[in-house]
Amino acid sequence: MLKKIVLTGAAGDLGSRLREPLSRMCEQLVSVDIKDATGPLAANETWARADCAEMDQVTPLMEGAEVVVHFAAIPDERSFEELLRPNFLSSYVIWEAAYKAGARRVVYASSVHAVGMHETNAGIDTDAPHRPDTFYGLSKCFTEDLARLYWEKRGLEAVCCRIFSGTEKPQNPRALGTWLSRGDLVQMVERAVDAPTTGFCVVFGISNNDRAPVSNAKVSFLGYRPKDNAEDHAADILAKAAKPDPQNLAQMRLGGPFATVPLGESGVAGMAKLVKKG
Amino acid sequence: MLKKIVLTGAAGDLGSRLREPLSRMCEQLVSVDIKDATGPLAANETWARADCAEMDQVTPLMEGAEVVVHFAAIPDERSFEELLRPNFLSSYVIWEAAYKAGARRVVYASSVHAVGMHETNAGIDTDAPHRPDTFYGLSKCFTEDLARLYWEKRGLEAVCCRIFSGTEKPQNPRALGTWLSRGDLVQMVERAVDAPTTGFCVVFGISNNDRAPVSNAKVSFLGYRPKDNAEDHAADILAKAAKPDPQNLAQMRLGGPFATVPLGESGVAGMAKLVKKG
Amino acid sequence: MLKKIVLTGAAGDLGSRLREPLSRMCEQLVSVDIKDATGPLAANETWARADCAEMDQVTPLMEGAEVVVHFAAIPDERSFEELLRPNFLSSYVIWEAAYKAGARRVVYASSVHAVGMHETNAGIDTDAPHRPDTFYGLSKCFTEDLARLYWEKRGLEAVCCRIFSGTEKPQNPRALGTWLSRGDLVQMVERAVDAPTTGFCVVFGISNNDRAPVSNAKVSFLGYRPKDNAEDHAADILAKAAKPDPQNLAQMRLGGPFATVPLGESGVAGMAKLVKKG
Amino acid sequence: MLKKIVLTGAAGDLGSRLREPLSRMCEQLVSVDIKDATGPLAANETWARADCAEMDQVTPLMEGAEVVVHFAAIPDERSFEELLRPNFLSSYVIWEAAYKAGARRVVYASSVHAVGMHETNAGIDTDAPHRPDTFYGLSKCFTEDLARLYWEKRGLEAVCCRIFSGTEKPQNPRALGTWLSRGDLVQMVERAVDAPTTGFCVVFGISNNDRAPVSNAKVSFLGYRPKDNAEDHAADILAKAAKPDPQNLAQMRLGGPFATVPLGESGVAGMAKLVKKG
Amino acid sequence: MLKKIVLTGAAGDLGSRLREPLSRMCEQLVSVDIKDATGPLAANETWARADCAEMDQVTPLMEGAEVVVHFAAIPDERSFEELLRPNFLSSYVIWEAAYKAGARRVVYASSVHAVGMHETNAGIDTDAPHRPDTFYGLSKCFTEDLARLYWEKRGLEAVCCRIFSGTEKPQNPRALGTWLSRGDLVQMVERAVDAPTTGFCVVFGISNNDRAPVSNAKVSFLGYRPKDNAEDHAADILAKAAKPDPQNLAQMRLGGPFATVPLGESGVAGMAKLVKKG
Amino acid sequence: MLKKIVLTGAAGDLGSRLREPLSRMCEQLVSVDIKDATGPLAANETWARADCAEMDQVTPLMEGAEVVVHFAAIPDERSFEELLRPNFLSSYVIWEAAYKAGARRVVYASSVHAVGMHETNAGIDTDAPHRPDTFYGLSKCFTEDLARLYWEKRGLEAVCCRIFSGTEKPQNPRALGTWLSRGDLVQMVERAVDAPTTGFCVVFGISNNDRAPVSNAKVSFLGYRPKDNAEDHAADILAKAAKPDPQNLAQMRLGGPFATVPLGESGVAGMAKLVKKG
Repeated sequence: MLKKIVLTGAAGDLGSRLREPLSRMCEQLVSVDIKDATGPLAANETWARADCAEMDQVTPLMEGAEVVVHFAAIPDERSFEELLRPNFLSSYVIWEAAYKAGARRVVYASSVHAVGMHETNAGIDTDAPHRPDTFYGLSKCFTEDLARLYWEKRGLEAVCCRIFSGTEKPQNPRALGTWLSRGDLVQMVERAVDAPTTGFCVVFGISNNDRAPVSNAKVSFLGYRPKDNAEDHAADILAKAAKPDPQNLAQMRLGGPFATVPLGESGVAGMAKLVKKG
Repeated sequence: MLKKIVLTGAAGDLGSRLREPLSRMCEQLVSVDIKDATGPLAANETWARADCAEMDQVTPLMEGAEVVVHFAAIPDERSFEELLRPNFLSSYVIWEAAYKAGARRVVYASSVHAVGMHETNAGIDTDAPHRPDTFYGLSKCFTEDLARLYWEKRGLEAVCCRIFSGTEKPQNPRALGTWLSRGDLVQMVERAVDAPTTGFCVVFGISNNDRAPVSNAKVSFLGYRPKDNAEDHAADILAKAAKPDPQNLAQMRLGGPFATVPLGESGVAGMAKLVKKG
Repeated sequence: MLKKIVLTGAAGDLGSRLREPLSRMCEQLVSVDIKDATGPLAANETWARADCAEMDQVTPLMEGAEVVVHFAAIPDERSFEELLRPNFLSSYVIWEAAYKAGARRVVYASSVHAVGMHETNAGIDTDAPHRPDTFYGLSKCFTEDLARLYWEKRGLEAVCCRIFSGTEKPQNPRALGTWLSRGDLVQMVERAVDAPTTGFCVVFGISNNDRAPVSNAKVSFLGYRPKDNAEDHAADILAKAAKPDPQNLAQMRLGGPFATVPLGESGVAGMAKLVKKG
Repeated sequence: MLKKIVLTGAAGDLGSRLREPLSRMCEQLVSVDIKDATGPLAANETWARADCAEMDQVTPLMEGAEVVVHFAAIPDERSFEELLRPNFLSSYVIWEAAYKAGARRVVYASSVHAVGMHETNAGIDTDAPHRPDTFYGLSKCFTEDLARLYWEKRGLEAVCCRIFSGTEKPQNPRALGTWLSRGDLVQMVERAVDAPTTGFCVVFGISNNDRAPVSNAKVSFLGYRPKDNAEDHAADILAKAAKPDPQNLAQMRLGGPFATVPLGESGVAGMAKLVKKG
Repeated sequence: MLKKIVLTGAAGDLGSRLREPLSRMCEQLVSVDIKDATGPLAANETWARADCAEMDQVTPLMEGAEVVVHFAAIPDERSFEELLRPNFLSSYVIWEAAYKAGARRVVYASSVHAVGMHETNAGIDTDAPHRPDTFYGLSKCFTEDLARLYWEKRGLEAVCCRIFSGTEKPQNPRALGTWLSRGDLVQMVERAVDAPTTGFCVVFGISNNDRAPVSNAKVSFLGYRPKDNAEDHAADILAKAAKPDPQNLAQMRLGGPFATVPLGESGVAGMAKLVKKG
Repeated sequence: MLKKIVLTGAAGDLGSRLREPLSRMCEQLVSVDIKDATGPLAANETWARADCAEMDQVTPLMEGAEVVVHFAAIPDERSFEELLRPNFLSSYVIWEAAYKAGARRVVYASSVHAVGMHETNAGIDTDAPHRPDTFYGLSKCFTEDLARLYWEKRGLEAVCCRIFSGTEKPQNPRALGTWLSRGDLVQMVERAVDAPTTGFCVVFGISNNDRAPVSNAKVSFLGYRPKDNAEDHAADILAKAAKPDPQNLAQMRLGGPFATVPLGESGVAGMAKLVKKG
């Protein structure tokens, strides 16, 4: 049982699902977002509105924190200028504040888009080199390297969870491989928090999908064993899928539509279009 | 649901088992063999007698095909001269005809014998280099390289299924590792056909055997998850097995008896002898 | 069914658990220890008191043996001088005597401590280089290299089982990854004995733990598929665990407390202390 | 002969040495710095004062440029806040402006400090993962990933020259391995500019030192063959060197003093102290 | 001094340059081609007109041969049908006849085009996988695999020399990396012949070019140390080179124009066009 | 200039050649052997007769030593019993005594025979796994692992020099690749001594031979750049060499005759026989 966990992005689509599970792992949960709380607070939960790119807003929240779960960010491609504060600078602020407060670990919502230009059929491991597909992905590369720096120079641990397709159900053929169920998201973050020691490491956030394109074999020590399998939805999805096109990088690279979206334009919109067409 | 699949070697031991499952995946199945059909046709199936090494026999069959499942070949070691047309040239004919017809993908019955000289205890992945054990294995190496060429230069996808021991039951100690059950064969080919995009890739055709000597970890994106396990037969097989001999390459290399059979002589006969002795 | 198995260290904590299972795999089991038998003998079991570092005591026991299961050793860190005979010289004596008697294989109780200085989060495979953490671990490195030598020069097979935490239950947070249950120990040794051919190989002795820090993917041919999972004990263990400390190598290296114990001092005692504190 | 090259950081210690050689490779050289020119201009050289983190100052300079040689940056560790504009943001501005102007390639002054936490005796290649030693090193990691992104999404080439110890002479024992002579710096940049095509690549900027700790074997296609050898200075340097200390990371990691300097404090000052003590 | 060497393709552009050097390494040189001799014979040289795809023409020539240097082939891309006999079948005939005659080794003119689809800036080693760029390259892949098969099953050694740009002088920017001078060709073949034992191996046929895109580090045992350097021609070539285009695979892949030429069309013609344009 | 170096095996064939060079690197050289001195002592050299397997003989010699150069051993294959004290135990004694005396580093005469079963044409690096060819080679594996242990647990540095064929001139075809000249031996040891920090590392002791079968690329930081080349003797040696036989492991493995000599029998004698036959 930890004394205190700080969760950022607590009002977000994924972050909000972590509030209840994290509240059970600590005496005090501080949920942070730039927005208001989206639902009732747990008994040991407090809500703090703050901009994670502002050191003086973040610093007081960190006092006494043992673990920080950092999910605040714009979850899509934008221009570099738009992402600079919420996705790049906020990472620096969070790590620096966490370090100064004596926290032990940061669990980070990294993304497949840090390695989105790798071929889907390459079967990469967690130690494949960075190949971002967007400025969004670049912000994840930046933060992972920052996390490694803080570990190697300052002993602040980090678990970078590269989230793939975190949706209620898998939504398109790509997601048969890349889906991360709600339950598996929670399990992954729980393991990232309760693993006794981690140093710096990276884990792929996907469910136990038959068609998983990547392997967590090298970080099995974390104990993340996903339970859900997108294959349960395969027949439905494939029946209404658009025609496959191996010349389309959006179908051949891990990043999916982010692999072809112009830099600075929304990849989620591209994803949505893909789904509609499907 | 595909418009049309062409299956070659449809009268063969393995090919004939694919007719029914493939017929359910397409509007039209064209089953091709140099022999007559061995059983009743499915409603959407037509049978074509053809020599796959003859371009003018193959070309008309390909019209409108989306996927070609190429299983026609002599399934054993023979002299190079005997294998030249059915195992080497037919591959060229199939790929060239498929390409010209605008097909999207070829699924190919490759074989463990493309890598049969690798040590069984080396634990190789699908990206291990070619080490053929026979002229038969060499024809598989040739076709895999041809398949990669057509993908890289012409965009024709290929899934090369390296079939190990495709028998009703595992028949000897080696097969405790190398068995491919009937059901898993079918599943592997189904995934090779319905995976939305594949580019060029290689998958090992073995069941979910406890003693599997090779790993499909790098092609998990295909979604092939075998269900059967040769270990269910282990007690029986080991009880009547011949004395192990680690100096015998037939027991120490992936290719089994093919690793020691003289070039050009039947390896299946050698396998049969081994079974009798066992 | 083997003619004869010789088991050394048969009175030890782990060795004694192998007597019954091994007795079912052969016509004659010779159980050897420097101590007396600790329980009733199986019908086909004989007990021999012998010092495994003495060639003239070992030689007669080996006559007619097909497989030797060598578990005799001091199971802890000691000064080099203390380990020299029981852990180093005995290995030479066992292999030399087994070879001269015409045995086919030695199954060896190696240890995680042969690679104990590797980082826990590195996800190593069985082909990672030696990085011993103690003189005890060094004796395992020495024996593995000796085993490889006898295989490559003399054709004597060897399966080196690197045992991790072989206890009744997992006892501390590290053991959530490293536990080897009683049942899985037995299965591992059974597979090491009944695998038809093995050449020289290394297998990690851990259960099917969610948090397994290492991978047996490259020796899947052995057929070792552990059934138990330390995660069943995770809640209990983590609840009373000491504060994690990533600056403490005992928490960050595979060898655990052996990674920090001074050379020549008992690592098991260090382990015990750790458990008490926990 | 290129139409136009833009050189940033042209008043810097290294950048200023590139003005004359680059002026011979193009019709027009635009030398850019936040400071005034430090010497006479070449006939085809113009000087532009600009802040590379300001898009509207940089954009007009890029018009018609074929190659950009980006050396502007604070060449030392500082607080993240101090480095943000000159070392991080300027990279984005340069790449974005170069891309919009239709430039073909950016040659970048990256640094050993992008991989400074790797062990000196590990013998890494250019494809080793990022392990920054400072915020300064982190800015190099960020820019390398940015450069790869612009190449993979937008076709803008990049050669990232990881400069080691760019000084007149080697100054301490570490530099016996890491020295980059003035002549070899120029040659490296010349090759990075005149190599017909490069895609994205990384090259280590060291001379032909006997004690070179890293290898450029995988980027030999660039044609960089350094001529100078720090070993010519070995006797002098070793004679007055401080006592070696393998427990001191500054002596055991590629980054040297940067591997131990506190984040945000000057590593060059640390280096200087080291030299004085030597 | 060998008893007898057989050289095929002796009238070819490269083969003819090997006649004199090989004649000095043996008592008897048999020079074979489908054409007549192109110059005076050495004292110990005989000329034989033969079609290397015809077993009965090749067999008598092999009698007593110790080493066969097989350079006969169409040295360009053609349709598969055109290459079948001279480039594929002839390899089988040569290896089979050499084996039956008791020859010890075949030295083979393989080609960069066996791996022509690899990126130029990937810095591959001799163990990179096959990625042919043409049917021509496919014939080299086929023969290398055949050569490995004869070595592993029959003990016939093979040195596969992957020739890059074997011309009088380097002719275009690509050749600054890929040039193989006349003298270095001869040295490579001499080492391939006089190395006491070789087993099966592959060596890249390039000179000591500053811009060499590949590495022979793993076959240094052969003793091939090229002396010439295309860089001596760099200024001339770059001065008149066409505009670089990193989107053109012909400039970014090892195979050069063969990487983009349509299958079955002459790549040499494409190369010539490139040179003219340059 | 070091205070004190201890050289063991100072009367041996190789050790005796190190006395003069080492004497120039330190204020005091203590030359140790079980035999008497073989020549005049340097001014700063003292001679000590001692058995390196006896702690009480070794301990007093180590007082004040900074670097120990450990060359004492039986330089040939013998029975395990014969090698136990001089080649195994002495290593423990040397490292333990050096550690207790506060020495900084041990430079060790390891041997190719630690990896002698690797194929000559595999082109291994210094991080290839141990594959000893003899008990002699096993003693080198043991000592290298011991050396790594003392480094990782106690901070005692070690440079393990794997000496290949250390003779006046290369003596047979194998030595064209494996020769280590007198001058290069001295240079290697000088670098191993004067490299400021080394941690634990392994370096191959071969000259700059054209036919070098192994690579020191990963330990270039040591600065060992051999000057001599066995190729200068190639014509002579090849002219009188025995017939090559690729089926003979003595010609195909790094260990040469040691790869085939029965365990416990002299490999040097086998080498001598080979030379006579040559």
